[in-house]
Amino acid sequence: MSAIPAVPASSPASSPVWSIDPRTGEQREQVGVEAAPEVVDAAVRAAHAARGALADRTLRAAFLRSAADQLERGRDEFIATADAETALGATRLTGELARTCYQLRSFADTVDDGAFLDVIISHPDASATPPVPDLRRYKIPLGVVAVYSASNFPFAFSVAGGDTASALAAGCPVVVKAHPDHPATSELAAAALRRAAAEHGIPEGVVGLVHGFDAGVALVEHPLVAAAGFTGSVRGGRALFDAAAARPVPIPFHGELGSLNPVWVTEAAAAERPEEIGSGLAASMTMGVGQFCVKPGLVLAPAGAAGDQLVKALGQSLADVDAGVMLDHRMRDSFLAGVAARTQLPYVEAPLAPGPGSEHTVAPGFLTVPVAPLLQEDGPYALLLEECFGPVTVVARYADASEAEALLARLPGNLTATLHVSTAEASGETSGADGGTDLVARLTPLAGRILVNAWPTGVAVAPAQHHGGPYPATTSTSTSVGSTAAERWLRPVAYQNTPEALLPPELRENNPLGLPRTVDGRREG
Amino acid sequence: MSAIPAVPASSPASSPVWSIDPRTGEQREQVGVEAAPEVVDAAVRAAHAARGALADRTLRAAFLRSAADQLERGRDEFIATADAETALGATRLTGELARTCYQLRSFADTVDDGAFLDVIISHPDASATPPVPDLRRYKIPLGVVAVYSASNFPFAFSVAGGDTASALAAGCPVVVKAHPDHPATSELAAAALRRAAAEHGIPEGVVGLVHGFDAGVALVEHPLVAAAGFTGSVRGGRALFDAAAARPVPIPFHGELGSLNPVWVTEAAAAERPEEIGSGLAASMTMGVGQFCVKPGLVLAPAGAAGDQLVKALGQSLADVDAGVMLDHRMRDSFLAGVAARTQLPYVEAPLAPGPGSEHTVAPGFLTVPVAPLLQEDGPYALLLEECFGPVTVVARYADASEAEALLARLPGNLTATLHVSTAEASGETSGADGGTDLVARLTPLAGRILVNAWPTGVAVAPAQHHGGPYPATTSTSTSVGSTAAERWLRPVAYQNTPEALLPPELRENNPLGLPRTVDGRREG
Repeated sequence: MSAIPAVPASSPASSPVWSIDPRTGEQREQVGVEAAPEVVDAAVRAAHAARGALADRTLRAAFLRSAADQLERGRDEFIATADAETALGATRLTGELARTCYQLRSFADTVDDGAFLDVIISHPDASATPPVPDLRRYKIPLGVVAVYSASNFPFAFSVAGGDTASALAAGCPVVVKAHPDHPATSELAAAALRRAAAEHGIPEGVVGLVHGFDAGVALVEHPLVAAAGFTGSVRGGRALFDAAAARPVPIPFHGELGSLNPVWVTEAAAAERPEEIGSGLAASMTMGVGQFCVKPGLVLAPAGAAGDQLVKALGQSLADVDAGVMLDHRMRDSFLAGVAARTQLPYVEAPLAPGPGSEHTVAPGFLTVPVAPLLQEDGPYALLLEECFGPVTVVARYADASEAEALLARLPGNLTATLHVSTAEASGETSGADGGTDLVARLTPLAGRILVNAWPTGVAVAPAQHHGGPYPATTSTSTSVGSTAAERWLRPVAYQNTPEALLPPELRENNPLGLPRTVDGRREG
Repeated sequence: MSAIPAVPASSPASSPVWSIDPRTGEQREQVGVEAAPEVVDAAVRAAHAARGALADRTLRAAFLRSAADQLERGRDEFIATADAETALGATRLTGELARTCYQLRSFADTVDDGAFLDVIISHPDASATPPVPDLRRYKIPLGVVAVYSASNFPFAFSVAGGDTASALAAGCPVVVKAHPDHPATSELAAAALRRAAAEHGIPEGVVGLVHGFDAGVALVEHPLVAAAGFTGSVRGGRALFDAAAARPVPIPFHGELGSLNPVWVTEAAAAERPEEIGSGLAASMTMGVGQFCVKPGLVLAPAGAAGDQLVKALGQSLADVDAGVMLDHRMRDSFLAGVAARTQLPYVEAPLAPGPGSEHTVAPGFLTVPVAPLLQEDGPYALLLEECFGPVTVVARYADASEAEALLARLPGNLTATLHVSTAEASGETSGADGGTDLVARLTPLAGRILVNAWPTGVAVAPAQHHGGPYPATTSTSTSVGSTAAERWLRPVAYQNTPEALLPPELRENNPLGLPRTVDGRREG
């Protein structure tokens, strides 16, 4: 059926790829084998050969919509398989699959709209210095995109997720490196995408899928791979980023690596609604067993009575949250080790210690610490400013606003930064150095998305979304969610003095495709 | 006068920086000393401290216009100094300075227009999956930009050139690494920019200037440097790119490194106007003594009589071109060595051999070679597919279109690719595999700018310009010329659920700044 078999007969020596049930730690089934170098090469070549089939935008949009249809058609099997591999539960996975289909259709709309082609036309202008000839510019696909799936979103940030959808929308074939936490789900999703391709006469090689760590490295190093998208850990992402940069021909590497997602609760906000903030935080930090890239991992709460109330409410809400199964046992081990290393630091307290639930689960909890030790230049407290994947957050109690600010200045880059302010602060009634506007301005350098009186979990798919931020949140200035994610897989090209008959239709004078464009500085359409 | 003295008294051990006359090889004057690490650090910190002064867009635009005024005011001194350091001649330098001023004012227009802020607003939408909250996104400056000046454009790609102008337009302060070929010109330009800054109350540290190789490395490694722009050689650019990627926090490195700028002359074009193409090529490849990034360095001309006529015309035109002084003696030595290495290859002929003119000059010339040896996978002919800086081009004679195409497939990335077609081909009258449309499509993967019946030298400053291309032309998908060059120095940030009173004015509902924006998919303004 597929040009790229999951279990190539020619690689008997390859390691098996198992689907594992995290609720028991047991092997469910062998999904395939780790891809040997020649299998990776074949997948990339098949994808490269399929690129011409994506040139037609109408076909591309139809393909993306068919992909959504195919995913919906197989919903029951997808969700059952993903749940068996990830333990994320049917409710969450049903929502995630719906989101994934919505995302594919949104990118189809982006393709139809055509603004992402960024058409700019400059007519000849003899008065310019130097004179301007006829110049027409738009954006073209980069080529084959390598996509590295995330552990924590088996649909939305994996085989049929945002990187793949945005790459296909841009006209780029993809080869996906499956995440070892959900290889069976990955195969199902790839098969669905290929069925959708086949419906439109697009070669199935337009979406390749490979398994295995070494295959992932071979992929980013392949000469025909033109760009890469990644969602995962700082360690894994940085290694692949380094490999992408070290190639004879370096390629763009759009990686989302890690984020602490700080939350700043003002004194007035804590005084106004401590219970609401405490319970909201508990819900956000435990969503998906704390395995979200945008989990709030550091909360700056005021010392004193109002902050105490917030902390109390947090503990009460968390006490009601069940223990949960993490995506795999290695992650569970890391989480427990990470919590233990943090808890043993002097000044760190654990009003509700996160820890093991049953043999396969973890129970949520939180730590508190005064801000002062976190301001040390070096030493063990830097650990508290690193992401700890799982249902834990660190509440740093600040004595005054200047102490909170000093801590913000020490934070690495983030996907999100959140501000909780009082009604008066939100209305702009307070101004100056402690006013709400000023607080927003202080958070802006830290992150790619700033939230006020909201929680960062739940990343909407929308044109104005930005899911990215200063390193290590992402390795580039791009987003992996929202319409502008397609920009990552394009490059501009300008045509000079090119006769109308030889121009791509997108750049012809009479705009036969009806594209939005900018002509001599005037926006049209 | 300046916060960053050119000759810091505290660095007595630093190497002197000399301004050298390439017409004689003699030292003209000591301009300063190479910047010690603490001098680089001070320049970066001063630039970083000045960033707030660039936040106001109106002020930024005024600053850019004043910078152009200041350059024009000092025109005579600038041109005399640059000519003494570069030997580029008063005519060319007068044009280049005018271009530089035009560019500064164009970026001021870009700032006023505001489209580069890329404002996108998504209103809440409960029907989306997941529901969309209020999201408002625009782009903010990255921070201090390191600018590496080019040897061959002492104004337009140096201290006050496109990288600096686009960075300031984006709201980013700059620290420029001066090119050793024009340190005195660099100091004059930096002083002019600082006078312009002072006119508007912007700290003079907003434009820093450092000299020296080690200073350049220290600059790209400085923690407060957020991005870099570079124009120069593959070797130097790649080393800095690698350093930028290897930082604990990697930064975007927008480097323009090298380009062969292939030209494809069809059989029909050669038959139609061999003299016009031959003489046009001679003019383009010798402009600025062949020291342009977009010099046509490889010409695919047909074997046979029409191609012979073209080659003859090229030789006749070149014979009329005077020997010229290159930018420095090291470059002259490289050019002569490069020509010698190429000329000694079997099958390579030199109908008009480039070579030394007088002790300080070089005479233009060209080489010819059949395509066949260039198709060898490895071996010495790869040299002919590398840029040779200076007044030489290689004419590769192809037997048929398939041979020409095979050569195109072996080329590295380029800034430009040029097609010369006949009148019939230009009109689209010929179609299919040899039609003009198809030829344009085949050249497109090779470069960032495609020209038809024109020459690549003379890079217009215009919104639709794209000056960049696949590696090694550039290390990113961006441009260093034209309005979109400002995009390099920005990153998006989205505000979620943020009360109107706390939003930046750019994102407020009633659009108080009158910015072009996209609201719920509709383009406004």
